[in-house]
Amino acid sequence: MPFVHISLREGKPETYRRALGDGVHRALVEVLSVPVDDHFQIITEHKSESVIHDPQYLGIERTDDIVFIRITLGLGRTLAQKRALYARTAARLAESPGLRPQDVFIMLVEIPIENWSFGNGIAQYADKPPTWINRGA
Amino acid sequence: MPFVHISLREGKPETYRRALGDGVHRALVEVLSVPVDDHFQIITEHKSESVIHDPQYLGIERTDDIVFIRITLGLGRTLAQKRALYARTAARLAESPGLRPQDVFIMLVEIPIENWSFGNGIAQYADKPPTWINRGA
Amino acid sequence: MPFVHISLREGKPETYRRALGDGVHRALVEVLSVPVDDHFQIITEHKSESVIHDPQYLGIERTDDIVFIRITLGLGRTLAQKRALYARTAARLAESPGLRPQDVFIMLVEIPIENWSFGNGIAQYADKPPTWINRGA
Repeated sequence: MPFVHISLREGKPETYRRALGDGVHRALVEVLSVPVDDHFQIITEHKSESVIHDPQYLGIERTDDIVFIRITLGLGRTLAQKRALYARTAARLAESPGLRPQDVFIMLVEIPIENWSFGNGIAQYADKPPTWINRGA
Repeated sequence: MPFVHISLREGKPETYRRALGDGVHRALVEVLSVPVDDHFQIITEHKSESVIHDPQYLGIERTDDIVFIRITLGLGRTLAQKRALYARTAARLAESPGLRPQDVFIMLVEIPIENWSFGNGIAQYADKPPTWINRGA
Repeated sequence: MPFVHISLREGKPETYRRALGDGVHRALVEVLSVPVDDHFQIITEHKSESVIHDPQYLGIERTDDIVFIRITLGLGRTLAQKRALYARTAARLAESPGLRPQDVFIMLVEIPIENWSFGNGIAQYADKPPTWINRGA
């Protein structure tokens, strides 16, 4: 159910971008108990000039490697889960592709489970709510 | 008021992509009574490697033709309306451009009507709420 | 905290696009008291055929210069603040790059402050809520 949109500046190889997607997904699986095959992402690359980031807001030193991670997910995660997700995501991306934690920018857009259709024109989660929401580690 | 962002892999002709936009809009008009001229969309094409989708999550067999449809719309639709929208969208896209229903992935992001400005720096719907919300067929 | 995604048709020079970003940010700073260094944006250009807009919905005459401005921001702004933001954004963009107010389309997606991580895997605003929300002019 999470749908992940990752945005970064162009210039990184495919393996790097794939590692970004993999790391975010792994964090979602580990922290929020998202099923491993609930994996839907888009990764967009942008001209350097088309990504604007402040290099020090809140005292965090960001570089041109900044990655914006927008996660659309079901309502119902606790603050503790969200905190754990941020930490795990930054840790996984530090492992691979080696992204600096300062360059991991995350936003969560929560929507009701009835607002998803995974195919076939059906509201799968409205019919059968996922049991794994609120069972995060 | 719905703003529709459609994402798919590159390689389809313009007519195909236009049919996607038309089909989604037609479903919104038919099911949610959206005015026919309330038509605002962006269609983005992505490198194949930059779209990640699971090919069987929830038992739905997806292909590389998968289309992600993110609809930002006003709060207030019922579950019945949402179900009908998913079904109609999949049906319209099956008619044209011939998209498999399994490859129709939909997300709804609902926002208050005061969160829209359609131009001129004015909150048109806060001034005059649309009468057609909650009058869906 | 606002994250701004600006979408327009391709064909405008970098200075034009930068002026769009600057104008939106300036309006956020002026109207919502957003810190000047809380500046995070992505600007995407699209093929003309991939942007669909109605040229007269709600009686507003739009052109191919239409700009879609999606602002993700923290919950808590009043209707008066939102109205002022729309007006100021349109006014700033009219000044530079000279965008017609009719072509300024704005959407606000509000999310809780705990849904942001500005880097380092931490929920900065959950730890220390921003004092400037609800202190807009």
